[in-house]
Amino acid sequence: MTETITAAICLIGDELLSGRTRDINVQSIAGFLAPYGVPVREVRIVPDEQDTIVAAVNALRAAYTYVFTTGGIGPTHDDITADAIAAAFGVSIGEHPEALKILAERYAAVDTEFTSARRRMARIPDGASLIANPVSGAPGFQTGNVFTLAGVPKIVVGMLGDIGHRLKTGAVVQSVTVRGAGLREGDIAEALGALAVAYEGLSLGSYPWFRTVQDHGVALVARGTDPSQLDAVALELENLVKTHGIEPVRLAGDDLAGSGGPRPGID
Amino acid sequence: MTETITAAICLIGDELLSGRTRDINVQSIAGFLAPYGVPVREVRIVPDEQDTIVAAVNALRAAYTYVFTTGGIGPTHDDITADAIAAAFGVSIGEHPEALKILAERYAAVDTEFTSARRRMARIPDGASLIANPVSGAPGFQTGNVFTLAGVPKIVVGMLGDIGHRLKTGAVVQSVTVRGAGLREGDIAEALGALAVAYEGLSLGSYPWFRTVQDHGVALVARGTDPSQLDAVALELENLVKTHGIEPVRLAGDDLAGSGGPRPGID
Repeated sequence: MTETITAAICLIGDELLSGRTRDINVQSIAGFLAPYGVPVREVRIVPDEQDTIVAAVNALRAAYTYVFTTGGIGPTHDDITADAIAAAFGVSIGEHPEALKILAERYAAVDTEFTSARRRMARIPDGASLIANPVSGAPGFQTGNVFTLAGVPKIVVGMLGDIGHRLKTGAVVQSVTVRGAGLREGDIAEALGALAVAYEGLSLGSYPWFRTVQDHGVALVARGTDPSQLDAVALELENLVKTHGIEPVRLAGDDLAGSGGPRPGID
Repeated sequence: MTETITAAICLIGDELLSGRTRDINVQSIAGFLAPYGVPVREVRIVPDEQDTIVAAVNALRAAYTYVFTTGGIGPTHDDITADAIAAAFGVSIGEHPEALKILAERYAAVDTEFTSARRRMARIPDGASLIANPVSGAPGFQTGNVFTLAGVPKIVVGMLGDIGHRLKTGAVVQSVTVRGAGLREGDIAEALGALAVAYEGLSLGSYPWFRTVQDHGVALVARGTDPSQLDAVALELENLVKTHGIEPVRLAGDDLAGSGGPRPGID
């Protein structure tokens, strides 16, 4: 049996809690990890306060195989993540020679002064390995099972490219979606519950969408590691939709069409 | 001195962790709470698993004045939030007469069968008070300091309208933004750090944006409860931007223009 590999994400930044910034890094990281069979099991968003970051990182790294932090590794006073990670692991922090070299070359190349503030970005917890940043140079780092990434979404995506080769892989979760236009959750809830019991190895989700009075319905999503079980349940979900006189639409994978949009309606 | 009032948010749903859905409820709730002087201090995203929900809710309700949960109160088998809240508080759960009446009338009005699945949405923890849902009828509920809301963004916004009158209010955090087009974080990091020390009652944040080679810069955001301190620091931030030969732009409040967008560049 494949080892169960799990991940958690710790987003660091006052701007996420105040509502100034809407996070997108959870989607990037979860989507990146899925093909490795590493499901994200918990996310926390914490402010730029060292004690709070330390407590969250220590709780998460004890509970999950991997932890990804984002944010707080830039040059300004509120960038305290590297110090917090060092404190969480009880190690020292200092200028990393390779990080210093990367930064010095980067700023020389763009004819920009390598200020002492920018030099702060070379401060890396002792024993950590660097994570390449193809977008803006300043590296992230890995400390034990914790990957510390930037907060800027494009840089996060860039850094993920230096992480795949470090991961143990688990059983890959696949998914199938059956959409029923015009369907309402309350119509199929009981039958869906029975299917969830019958296919206990799968996770069945029900996601209503409602864009206009004409365009609403329910997306039924099955997730699991056994393709034959997914095929079988997809057939049952299609039949369930048909019993309500609606022609189902089956899609391989998650149905992302309704993602993030407004989805109220009559449940 | 005004009592410190705080809030945490617990988002419940596998679809948020898998990356299927990008959350927007944190922004809605944080933006709603700000004028009441209730800052959001922590967010957790947890899966549709009762034990995990119970642990998260109990940790958060002990640490913060208010907790807001979203998701998991619909009619399907994966809607287990009401049971989890009852378990977290150690109370029973049963059909709430008023909730049952609201739902029965709602479905009668739209000529839809009030199935036993839909009837599940009337199950409310003992002792809870209902939270009106002007969008789709099925109510949320308040149990002690925990507000349990729907997951659908429009319904969340609707339910918040029945929450303001229940809140104790704290000192309102105001903010001012000074934008410097063409500025880079590394240019102003040291001076900004000195201002953060000088104005220790305020929180100073630095948020770079980078849309194109022509359109990039840094937004400096000061947040705090003392308007005269905010005015004073805004003047200093403007002067700081000017020392780099850049004309600053001051905005009252948070600068939401860069929110959620890609913001890499040269720090």
